[in-house]
Amino acid sequence: MHSTLGVLGGMGPLATADFYRKIVEETDAHCDQEHIPVLVYSLPDIPCRSTAIMDRGRSPLPRMIEGLRKLEQAKVEAIAIPCNTAHYWYRDLCKATSLPILHIVDAVAVELQRMSYQPRHLGLLATESTLAARIYHDRLAGHGYSFTVNAPDDREKLVVRAINLVKQGRPQEGGHLLELAVRKLLDRGVEAPILACTELPVALESIGSSLLSCCVDASRALAKAAVAWSTERAGMPAMTRAVLAPSRLAPAQSS
Amino acid sequence: MHSTLGVLGGMGPLATADFYRKIVEETDAHCDQEHIPVLVYSLPDIPCRSTAIMDRGRSPLPRMIEGLRKLEQAKVEAIAIPCNTAHYWYRDLCKATSLPILHIVDAVAVELQRMSYQPRHLGLLATESTLAARIYHDRLAGHGYSFTVNAPDDREKLVVRAINLVKQGRPQEGGHLLELAVRKLLDRGVEAPILACTELPVALESIGSSLLSCCVDASRALAKAAVAWSTERAGMPAMTRAVLAPSRLAPAQSS
Repeated sequence: MHSTLGVLGGMGPLATADFYRKIVEETDAHCDQEHIPVLVYSLPDIPCRSTAIMDRGRSPLPRMIEGLRKLEQAKVEAIAIPCNTAHYWYRDLCKATSLPILHIVDAVAVELQRMSYQPRHLGLLATESTLAARIYHDRLAGHGYSFTVNAPDDREKLVVRAINLVKQGRPQEGGHLLELAVRKLLDRGVEAPILACTELPVALESIGSSLLSCCVDASRALAKAAVAWSTERAGMPAMTRAVLAPSRLAPAQSS
Repeated sequence: MHSTLGVLGGMGPLATADFYRKIVEETDAHCDQEHIPVLVYSLPDIPCRSTAIMDRGRSPLPRMIEGLRKLEQAKVEAIAIPCNTAHYWYRDLCKATSLPILHIVDAVAVELQRMSYQPRHLGLLATESTLAARIYHDRLAGHGYSFTVNAPDDREKLVVRAINLVKQGRPQEGGHLLELAVRKLLDRGVEAPILACTELPVALESIGSSLLSCCVDASRALAKAAVAWSTERAGMPAMTRAVLAPSRLAPAQSS
């Protein structure tokens, strides 16, 4: 009997649907019954994470904790949050629950380590708030990576616009913009562009982009970590330890 | 504040992910916060519905009721079940809960009524157990529809095989088989082939099949009904009444 994974979702909803599909795809199963039980709580009215970080808007933390409570009551045994920006509140969320919370950046770190070559030069495609809060920079510090982001104008017109288009249900339009942003990073010598916002793989997948294969998809990395957690809980060896263990480096934090 | 929809899923998991995505796609929203709250419980170890109906295997009903209980405890206000065959136990499930359960065949009936032309000659692509239990035939009786299914050999080698391939994580292979089955129905004068198993649209979508546009996708119909239920609960007019009202014709039932 597999343990139940809880997904705190809705940030945004299409990205949550995409993440849950990736959990299914990443599970080595040949029939329904071999899959892992998952409880996905899509709570779309969580206040905007980016506005809270950048403009001191209403904090999403109380509503995220309400979501955690519902998942706890339903007896899930670990939590995954398919939203990179929400990890700004990772430590606060960990304080609010005794359940382990898989960290999306740790899942990406595991993914980078598993690549056939070892990229050192990473690209970050993310919300402005994920970049400003240094969620990836701080969590991956000490690994020797260098980070490149798009120029401010490209971030606004390509990356952030692509994210918003996915949230508006127009992923294909977002996909074409995002391809330009990825190509610009590759032209600057980036070896591994990280799709560090869970809307971004939705955009590229919606147009069947060939660029997906050269990007690291943080959402799929988290899905793999979730499946590995479940596999390990069921008594099989897995690679989740690195994802669950507290990083020696504190994540960027509010409060 | 929207009411929370509960999804009793995992039958199968990829079809559940697809259904949840369709809920998001069918919602008229321009940002995260305009989407509806959904709790998706993917419980893949529910015993096989087809085996229970055809070979008197272990009943899935007790485990489905356990799933309902968890959704009730989490305070959802209606239930959707993205599995056609599971609707064999619809009446038993309704007896086990005070929550309304959207019926997938009623959702398809609404969809048929909304089509620009009124198809009379329907095709049914489904599990053998959905056909044998006459889940669609009995629920749509009185509407004057005629039903055509594929020949037994084609059902086994094309339709059931496509369903199993999706469950095995090989939807593209299933998509190519399913296209043949749909074409054979169209050649026999079927006006509206109904994808009456939630794995089937996953198969066609995975290969970007042009045949999707001429099929009625029961999973998307149920997603539309779910969004309409939520919209109506939020005080806006909608079309869910036909889906929620008890049909004057009893569905095919176990006892």
